Amino acid sequence: MLLIPTIIKEIETVLSQVKENQLQNIAGQLQKAKRIFVNGEGRSGLMAKSFAMRLMHLGATVYVVGETITPSIEEGDLLVAISGSGTTKNVVWTAEKTNSLGCSVVAVTTNPESALAQAATTVLHVPAATKYRRENELKTIQPLGSLFDQCAHLVFDTLCLLYSALTQVDHDAAFGRHSNLE
Amino acid sequence: MLLIPTIIKEIETVLSQVKENQLQNIAGQLQKAKRIFVNGEGRSGLMAKSFAMRLMHLGATVYVVGETITPSIEEGDLLVAISGSGTTKNVVWTAEKTNSLGCSVVAVTTNPESALAQAATTVLHVPAATKYRRENELKTIQPLGSLFDQCAHLVFDTLCLLYSALTQVDHDAAFGRHSNLE
Amino acid sequence: MLLIPTIIKEIETVLSQVKENQLQNIAGQLQKAKRIFVNGEGRSGLMAKSFAMRLMHLGATVYVVGETITPSIEEGDLLVAISGSGTTKNVVWTAEKTNSLGCSVVAVTTNPESALAQAATTVLHVPAATKYRRENELKTIQPLGSLFDQCAHLVFDTLCLLYSALTQVDHDAAFGRHSNLE
Amino acid sequence: MLLIPTIIKEIETVLSQVKENQLQNIAGQLQKAKRIFVNGEGRSGLMAKSFAMRLMHLGATVYVVGETITPSIEEGDLLVAISGSGTTKNVVWTAEKTNSLGCSVVAVTTNPESALAQAATTVLHVPAATKYRRENELKTIQPLGSLFDQCAHLVFDTLCLLYSALTQVDHDAAFGRHSNLE
Repeated sequence: MLLIPTIIKEIETVLSQVKENQLQNIAGQLQKAKRIFVNGEGRSGLMAKSFAMRLMHLGATVYVVGETITPSIEEGDLLVAISGSGTTKNVVWTAEKTNSLGCSVVAVTTNPESALAQAATTVLHVPAATKYRRENELKTIQPLGSLFDQCAHLVFDTLCLLYSALTQVDHDAAFGRHSNLE
Repeated sequence: MLLIPTIIKEIETVLSQVKENQLQNIAGQLQKAKRIFVNGEGRSGLMAKSFAMRLMHLGATVYVVGETITPSIEEGDLLVAISGSGTTKNVVWTAEKTNSLGCSVVAVTTNPESALAQAATTVLHVPAATKYRRENELKTIQPLGSLFDQCAHLVFDTLCLLYSALTQVDHDAAFGRHSNLE
Repeated sequence: MLLIPTIIKEIETVLSQVKENQLQNIAGQLQKAKRIFVNGEGRSGLMAKSFAMRLMHLGATVYVVGETITPSIEEGDLLVAISGSGTTKNVVWTAEKTNSLGCSVVAVTTNPESALAQAATTVLHVPAATKYRRENELKTIQPLGSLFDQCAHLVFDTLCLLYSALTQVDHDAAFGRHSNLE
Repeated sequence: MLLIPTIIKEIETVLSQVKENQLQNIAGQLQKAKRIFVNGEGRSGLMAKSFAMRLMHLGATVYVVGETITPSIEEGDLLVAISGSGTTKNVVWTAEKTNSLGCSVVAVTTNPESALAQAATTVLHVPAATKYRRENELKTIQPLGSLFDQCAHLVFDTLCLLYSALTQVDHDAAFGRHSNLE
C-alpha cells in the first residue's frame, strides 16, 4: 500500500463533510473581528499558530494565547480555539472565559457535543479520528490525532484563502508583511 | 470553484513527485540516529515542530533547535532542516555547522540547488511553490508558501508512519507518551 | 532617586526571607528526581524556562510543560510550578494532576495558602509583591509582578548553584552542553 | 558562604557601571519608536521576551523576533538585540539587517567591540561575565552567563520603569492589559 495516497484519501473523506459555506461565514467573522486570538495545545495548537501567522501576513491583527506579547482579550475580539477531543482543559477554559466576556468563539473540534463546542458561538466540526479512537470515529492508519491535525491545517488554510478574498490582500502585500529578519 | 478539492489536488500533484522509497530510506536514518534535531522558521518550522512532537510520541529522542532544553548537537545525531526556498539564513547556517561536525543532515526544500541542499547529506525534494514564485514552480491558488507547508506536513507524517513501522510502536504506546498535563 | 539601587534593595528585602537551607533541600530533591518538569505562565514562566535551560546545561533531564517534545509525566518525576499569586489556572491544575500521580511538586509562590501551594509537596515561599497588590504585600516601585519575577530568577539561579555543587558539574561540562547551533 | 548575598553583590558590582542617564536616553528611544522588536537566544533571549511582555503591558507595540505573529520590520521601528558575547550569529545578523534598513538598534552586550555592538546605533554595555570567561571579565561564582542574564533582567526592568514614567502608564492600566486568559 502506498502511504501518501492513503493519507490523502483519509483527508478527502473527512473534508468532504466540511461545508465551504460555513467556512465562508467564519471568514466573514474573522474579517469583522477587531482582533483575532487563537488557542490550542499540542500539534493542533501548532496548526493554530500556523493559521495565525498567515492571517498576520494577510493583514489581520492576530495573537496566539500564551505567546509573549499577547494582550488581554476584550469586547469585539474573536477567539479561534482548537482541540480534537474538545476536552483539552486549558483550551476549554479559555473559550469559556472568552465567551463570558461577550466575544465570539469559533471552536474547531471533532466533537460537536464536547465542552469546547458548548463554550463556542460557532462550531466548526471536523469529523476526523482523535487520539481517543472513539467508536464512531473514522478509521485511520495514522497514530493519535494526525488525521485531525492535517484536516485542521487545510481548513485553516482554506479560511485564509477566503479571508484574503474578502480583504483583497494579494500575494505581494502578504509577502511584504512576511518576516524580513530570518 | 470549490477551494478544498482544489487545494487537495495541488497537494496531490506535488506529492506524486515524492518517492516513498526515499522516505523509507530517511525513516531508516531517523531510526539509526542517536538523537534527532529539527530546525525551521516560520510556518514550515511549525511543521517541523509538529514532526518532532509526533516522533517523541513514537519513542524517538528528539529536540527542536531554539527551544529551551535543547542541548548541543554531537556525533551520531541527525538534523532535519526545513526551508522552502532553501535560503533561510539561520536554517542554512545550522545545517552547515551540523554537517561540519560529521552529523547527517536531511534537508526538506523545494530547491535541490539551494544553499540548504548543499549543506545536506540527504535532500528531500518537495517541488511545491514557495513565497518567491520562481518561474519553474507549480502554479497555486494559495498565498506565499502555503502549498509547501501542507506538503511538508504530509511528508513528515508519512515519515512518522514509516518510523513507527520500523520501531514497532503502536497507538497505545504513543498515547502513553502524549502529554498528560494538558 | 536612583532606580537600580532601589530595585536591588527591594530584591534584598524579599530574598532575606528565603532560607538557603530550604533551597539546599530542594536542590537535593532536584538531584534525586528521575526527570524535572517546569511550568509557569507569563514572565514568571519565562524565569522557569530560564531555570530549565540552565539545569539542562548542568546535566539534568528537564522539560518545560507546553513545549514541543515534552513527554507525559510519570512516577519519580518532579514538577517545579511557579505562579506569583498561586492562582494561575493552568499552573494549579497541572500541579494538582502531578500530585495525584504521586510525583513531588515544588511550588514557587508569594502565597503559601494559595491553591498552588495546596497542590504542592514543597512550598518555596517568595514574599514579593504580585500584580494583585494585596494589603500585606511588600511595597514596590515596580509594576505588576516584576519584583516577584526578579526574586524567582535569583532563587532559581541559586538552586542551580546548589544543584551543580551536588552533581559536581563544572563550568566546562556545562559549556559543552550549551547549544552549539546558535 | 551564603549564596544569595554573594549573587546580589555580583549584580551590584556589574550594575554600578551602568549609567542611569544612558537608560533614560534609551527609554526615550523606546517611547519614540513606532514599534519595538526584541531579539535574543538562550537565557538572555528569555530576558528579552520578559522585557517585551512588560512593555506590552505598559502600552508599547512590541514584537519578539521568531514568534508567530511578528511582522516584517520597517522604517521607524527599533530593535533591542541582546547577546552576552555579542557574537550570537542570528542576533548579529538580525541587527545588521535592521541597521541596513535605517532602523535604530540597541545592543545589550558585555562586549562593546563585538560584531553586535558594531551593528548597533546604541550600545548598552553590561560588563558581566559571559560563558566565555574572557580574561578581563569580572569573577563570578555562577556558571556560564548567569550573571549577565541577571543583570540584563534588571536593566530591562529599569528601562520599563523609565518608560512607564515617560508614557505615564500606571499600575491599573498595565494590569488591564495583562493576559486575562490564564
